[in-house]
Amino acid sequence: MDIKEISGGICAAEGFKAAGIHCGIKKDPEKKDLALILSEKKASCAAVYTLNFVKGAPLIVTKANIADGYAKAIICNSGNANTCNADGVKVAEGMCEDVAAALGISAGDVVVASTGVIGKPLDINVIKSGIPKLIKSLGRDGDGAAAAIMTTDIIKKELAVSFKCGGKICKLGGIAKGSGMIHPDMATLLVFITTDAAISPNMLHIALSEDVKTGFNMISVDGDTSTNDMVVVLANGMASNPEITADGEDFEVFRAALGKVTSELCKLIAKDGEGATKLIECSVKGALTDKDARAVARTVVSSPLVKTAVFGADANWGRVLCAAGYSGADADPFKIDVAFASAAGTVEVCKSGFGLPFSEEDAKKTLSDNEIRIEIDLNSGKGSARAYGCDLTYDYVRINGDYRS
Amino acid sequence: MDIKEISGGICAAEGFKAAGIHCGIKKDPEKKDLALILSEKKASCAAVYTLNFVKGAPLIVTKANIADGYAKAIICNSGNANTCNADGVKVAEGMCEDVAAALGISAGDVVVASTGVIGKPLDINVIKSGIPKLIKSLGRDGDGAAAAIMTTDIIKKELAVSFKCGGKICKLGGIAKGSGMIHPDMATLLVFITTDAAISPNMLHIALSEDVKTGFNMISVDGDTSTNDMVVVLANGMASNPEITADGEDFEVFRAALGKVTSELCKLIAKDGEGATKLIECSVKGALTDKDARAVARTVVSSPLVKTAVFGADANWGRVLCAAGYSGADADPFKIDVAFASAAGTVEVCKSGFGLPFSEEDAKKTLSDNEIRIEIDLNSGKGSARAYGCDLTYDYVRINGDYRS
Repeated sequence: MDIKEISGGICAAEGFKAAGIHCGIKKDPEKKDLALILSEKKASCAAVYTLNFVKGAPLIVTKANIADGYAKAIICNSGNANTCNADGVKVAEGMCEDVAAALGISAGDVVVASTGVIGKPLDINVIKSGIPKLIKSLGRDGDGAAAAIMTTDIIKKELAVSFKCGGKICKLGGIAKGSGMIHPDMATLLVFITTDAAISPNMLHIALSEDVKTGFNMISVDGDTSTNDMVVVLANGMASNPEITADGEDFEVFRAALGKVTSELCKLIAKDGEGATKLIECSVKGALTDKDARAVARTVVSSPLVKTAVFGADANWGRVLCAAGYSGADADPFKIDVAFASAAGTVEVCKSGFGLPFSEEDAKKTLSDNEIRIEIDLNSGKGSARAYGCDLTYDYVRINGDYRS
Repeated sequence: MDIKEISGGICAAEGFKAAGIHCGIKKDPEKKDLALILSEKKASCAAVYTLNFVKGAPLIVTKANIADGYAKAIICNSGNANTCNADGVKVAEGMCEDVAAALGISAGDVVVASTGVIGKPLDINVIKSGIPKLIKSLGRDGDGAAAAIMTTDIIKKELAVSFKCGGKICKLGGIAKGSGMIHPDMATLLVFITTDAAISPNMLHIALSEDVKTGFNMISVDGDTSTNDMVVVLANGMASNPEITADGEDFEVFRAALGKVTSELCKLIAKDGEGATKLIECSVKGALTDKDARAVARTVVSSPLVKTAVFGADANWGRVLCAAGYSGADADPFKIDVAFASAAGTVEVCKSGFGLPFSEEDAKKTLSDNEIRIEIDLNSGKGSARAYGCDLTYDYVRINGDYRS
């Protein structure tokens, strides 16, 4: 399969426009807080949502709006999660109605998302007043939208690819908002993906649901799972490929393109975890099942003791073994091999559950890189998995010690 | 029941001596690293162990030694966990043999424990060389032992009580080592408890197993679960009460005395969590079951976002609701009430899942205390639970960023 990285982000695919503006939710007028993504044609739409039983009002409204499998626009604000507010659903519906009216589309074709502080009423009038400017800003440049969904994110996260499907060149691009409150087993952040490939809502849903299992569900910043996070895909069919309606070669290439974009966004999200200085990738093989491998990989990248050790470039592999031990996975501690690796080299530290002699100097060098791999072989089966996380730093504490102010 | 706090710690009960010395495992000669607790008479013994599948060698040896339900001594070193070492079991057995030979008792009557770095070979000769001095230091003052089991702990944790059982005055005291790697669902630290009450090994085991469910399993410092932690109780019968061999009034008063000591040790452990400046107590009521209540309480005190908010004295109750939401408990988000409380007052922040107006100034004052209560009412049933944790601070990161050096 020939999947090429291209520029254009969320607007790389044909027929999509986007915009991001400051409407007044965030105090700082330099910071964008309202984003819009619009498809020229009605698009197949699929979404996955957080498993937190406390769900943001926008998720409830989006779920209802895309129940028919289609949507045309996504509106998203940052700076306020519109969650745990008595009027939350009304405000989220209002956001859809206001932008739909201004665009001349149906409110039922609008996806709505919010991110920010929980439990603070969101003033619909602030958003309403921003909508004319938002629509006026719509263009083929997705940068504004990528910026407008950021909260404590430092880097903008976007990626696009082109691929051949049904004899046509298709494009698929995405933007993501991550940083804190990110943990496995949930739709753990805000991700918006657009494509001009033609695919039925049902097949789009299958592709997305499968993808999150090995993608967004395998990243962890701090073990907290947000109430608001979701991943949404719009597919408007403007590439004119024959619509994908079943399994087959076309579906596989589509899945691969989706997987390429989501896996890169995952890495960017983990790397940009609140306060993070290093990306941690944990790859596990030799597990009895993929599920066991996933449990180990996610637990290792989630362990505060592993995360602080990586921050300190300390080859404290006992903490890795310890985290594997309480992951809930089925494994034999006396078969586990562990190595630390990075661009600076690989250091084997544990063989069959026991420590190996190694050069502390080499280990320090390896762990001083900004992309660290923890390689675990359970030597028991064929299950494998990969999880992404980040180190735990002074800045994580600083950022979260006083987030609301 | 009349349970009185008394002095004397681990040596409060009749017939127990203890000692703590520096033998050379820790670099700093001022820091004690080897502890001994000795009962004049053979004692009923019960223990619970970590559920981590990676188990320290000392746990394996202890389990074998106390299989008959009795023990006379506890030897414990700090500075090295003797875990994930190829010769670990041999070294742990050697510790028992050496101290038993010097004391003139059977090696099978010795409980052995270690705490510290994982995967670093422990030199038995260093311990061997310390044993004469250790035995010479034995006395009725438990302070040395309490100090010798500390790693990154800042405060010594000990408590003793007296109670009347079977017409006799009995005493029960304990010491604990905590700080990092502490999380629910495991025997999560080192705790040694001695009593002169007479109780059969079987009833002692029942009392301890029940107690850890609401005690040590309900504290969390960082969500990591150690490979080495255990709770051990020795009961030597020297109070001459009729031996407790079944349920009944005597057993209930014994359980209450044990619960008093363990619950106070729990608080001390949570309060002394690595880098902690504040004790967080989360009390949950109105849950469908006690199990649901425990899940919510433990998840809330474990959430890094809740912990950093408490550190920053930020009344970010959305994070509390969010943590409850991913606890796995069965609950209705639209019935949840949340309040923050401390000696400085109580502030209600959330009613039926929605935010209440509250004074930020009052909330700041409440959260600036060093003992914070998070009170949650799920308004759905009669289940209740209490969990203890601590705030997440810059110092946690500092302590763990470079623990080995």
